[in-house]
Amino acid sequence: MHEYFMEIALNLAELGRGYTSPNPLVGAVIVKDGRIIGSGYHQKYGGWHAEIHALNSVRESLEDATMYVTLEPCSHHGKTPPCCEAVVKSGIKKVVVATIDPNPLVSGRGIEYLRNHGVEVITDVLGQRSVRMNEIFNKYVTNKKPFVLVKAAMTLDGKIATVKLDSKWISSDKSRMRVQQLRKQFRSILVGVGTVIADDPSLTCRLDEDVIQPLRIIVDTHGRIPLHSRVLNDEFCGNTLIVMKDSVDHDLRLRIEEKGVKTLLLKLHEGKIDLHYLMEQLGEMGIDSVLIEGGSEIIASSLSANIVDKVMFFIAPKIIGGRLAKSVVGGDGVDLMKDALVIDELACEMVGGDMVATGYIKGGHR
Amino acid sequence: MHEYFMEIALNLAELGRGYTSPNPLVGAVIVKDGRIIGSGYHQKYGGWHAEIHALNSVRESLEDATMYVTLEPCSHHGKTPPCCEAVVKSGIKKVVVATIDPNPLVSGRGIEYLRNHGVEVITDVLGQRSVRMNEIFNKYVTNKKPFVLVKAAMTLDGKIATVKLDSKWISSDKSRMRVQQLRKQFRSILVGVGTVIADDPSLTCRLDEDVIQPLRIIVDTHGRIPLHSRVLNDEFCGNTLIVMKDSVDHDLRLRIEEKGVKTLLLKLHEGKIDLHYLMEQLGEMGIDSVLIEGGSEIIASSLSANIVDKVMFFIAPKIIGGRLAKSVVGGDGVDLMKDALVIDELACEMVGGDMVATGYIKGGHR
Repeated sequence: MHEYFMEIALNLAELGRGYTSPNPLVGAVIVKDGRIIGSGYHQKYGGWHAEIHALNSVRESLEDATMYVTLEPCSHHGKTPPCCEAVVKSGIKKVVVATIDPNPLVSGRGIEYLRNHGVEVITDVLGQRSVRMNEIFNKYVTNKKPFVLVKAAMTLDGKIATVKLDSKWISSDKSRMRVQQLRKQFRSILVGVGTVIADDPSLTCRLDEDVIQPLRIIVDTHGRIPLHSRVLNDEFCGNTLIVMKDSVDHDLRLRIEEKGVKTLLLKLHEGKIDLHYLMEQLGEMGIDSVLIEGGSEIIASSLSANIVDKVMFFIAPKIIGGRLAKSVVGGDGVDLMKDALVIDELACEMVGGDMVATGYIKGGHR
Repeated sequence: MHEYFMEIALNLAELGRGYTSPNPLVGAVIVKDGRIIGSGYHQKYGGWHAEIHALNSVRESLEDATMYVTLEPCSHHGKTPPCCEAVVKSGIKKVVVATIDPNPLVSGRGIEYLRNHGVEVITDVLGQRSVRMNEIFNKYVTNKKPFVLVKAAMTLDGKIATVKLDSKWISSDKSRMRVQQLRKQFRSILVGVGTVIADDPSLTCRLDEDVIQPLRIIVDTHGRIPLHSRVLNDEFCGNTLIVMKDSVDHDLRLRIEEKGVKTLLLKLHEGKIDLHYLMEQLGEMGIDSVLIEGGSEIIASSLSANIVDKVMFFIAPKIIGGRLAKSVVGGDGVDLMKDALVIDELACEMVGGDMVATGYIKGGHR
């Protein structure tokens, strides 16, 4: 029974996806005599928390009511007053929580407050689903570094383009729609300059008018980006960040910045942009999530730098062959199978005829 | 209800897998008053058919009994007398058939015979499952060419070995056990000589003592196989076939044949072994199935030659990277995405932590 109502709360929480960053997704339902008498979810960053929306939606007495909430109610004064106090004041005597808040400012204190004020608290009901739903939040709030997802579209034989560099299109319409949804959920998209040179992508989210466009990050160590590229000239160019070495041509930098595009100059580490350091910088800028969309060299560098939390490969039912065709992960590669990067929780789903494989990098920071 | 009993018959049929080639898998159950009163399956090539085993197993009157059989009963005198006659003589008045026999010698005539002799026949109950179960038989009996499956083990990033050619092991123990089961079901295994040079595999089925070992076919156009290779020297070397160009060094050929190994010399077609012609030759030798196990060049040639019916890729939860690491399909590849080989009915299953992707080549001869 607890799981039944928690599932509804989790589904409500999902409705906030794309609008709450860097806050978590949270849903709440209030149940009395087996009926749902109130519900709510965290709709957007800075807005009321799920618990408050749910309490406000109730039109009857809260006596003997139970609140189901997907994350421990907060105990601290943030943008809004603490939810714990509101719950206690409401008269609710029983709260079922999916999982505790990993935020060090809360983490158990919300539940403690409730219990100290005579509220019965049950925890860990569908907790794993709540944790996964907020994987971005969980990483960022505990590490101050963004959650990083590598996404790629490949053929069944592991290639991201033909020998002649044709890649339009590998994956299905439905898969590409999924990528649009990812772009809505991630605060930034990162690609290597090679992808910009080859495809001149726009890297925008075209789902809704009101979507918060992700920051477009181009790793362009040596300043090779063509000045006519879309990301430097379209209506969202204020939302582009070019990451280059600190010794890059000064003139080039100025010409990029004149367009309203931001640049970030970093000292090279062993001849390369230090992606680990870049993630720290992005974290400090408030970027909680990075969607790496290729190409194969930046994917390889990211995996080697151990900044990646999760991979999502869209595998199309096509074979193109070609010993010289680019495969999804480039770089030098490991020498021995025993040194392979291991993927945890590999799972597969069919989307529009494509297989979508997802998994987590073993030993990540989640 | 029909599907319930047919499913049991299909599961019985599966028990014959590996022993009936080039005959199909067939199972039968006999049902009376909702009880199974007899059952049987085609156990081995040349032995009694499923219907006869089922009839012989019954210990009571067949009045009002129904037979469920996964393939149309045969109407011709082969190694055994026609099953149709036995069914009619038994007094059974109702037969439920999963699918008609694609064998041009039967194909509808069995059902016609039954109907002409007063037996009610219901067809197409779980027919697609029976068709898939006998995909080897169906291809061979209608085309006289073997059913060809390409099997490969690859990492999630599409590679079959590291840059240093290490490939032990990519897939899980359970996946490798699946490959052993495949080897039991296929009459032959085909690899390129590069795989023999790199890995010196034994290419045997190590599942049971009594298994019929598959013919080991090595495509070795220019006669590069090392004379100390396992396939030329082990206890099964009489079961190895080396396919070479007709102009290959005569001495080499003799030294291979002295070991008791068979050779097949073919005229080159555009500088290559004509795999299409090779399949015809294998068909004439009674080989109904070929399991292609790599490497990437022979897989590419097979796909280009349009001899492949099905692919099965074991995709391990590992990433090894390497722009120079071999990916699963080599060759020159296609230039444009629109020319990609399309895979029908792509499906995914998890086996021992690996994803197993299977699919059929669009426009094949099945």
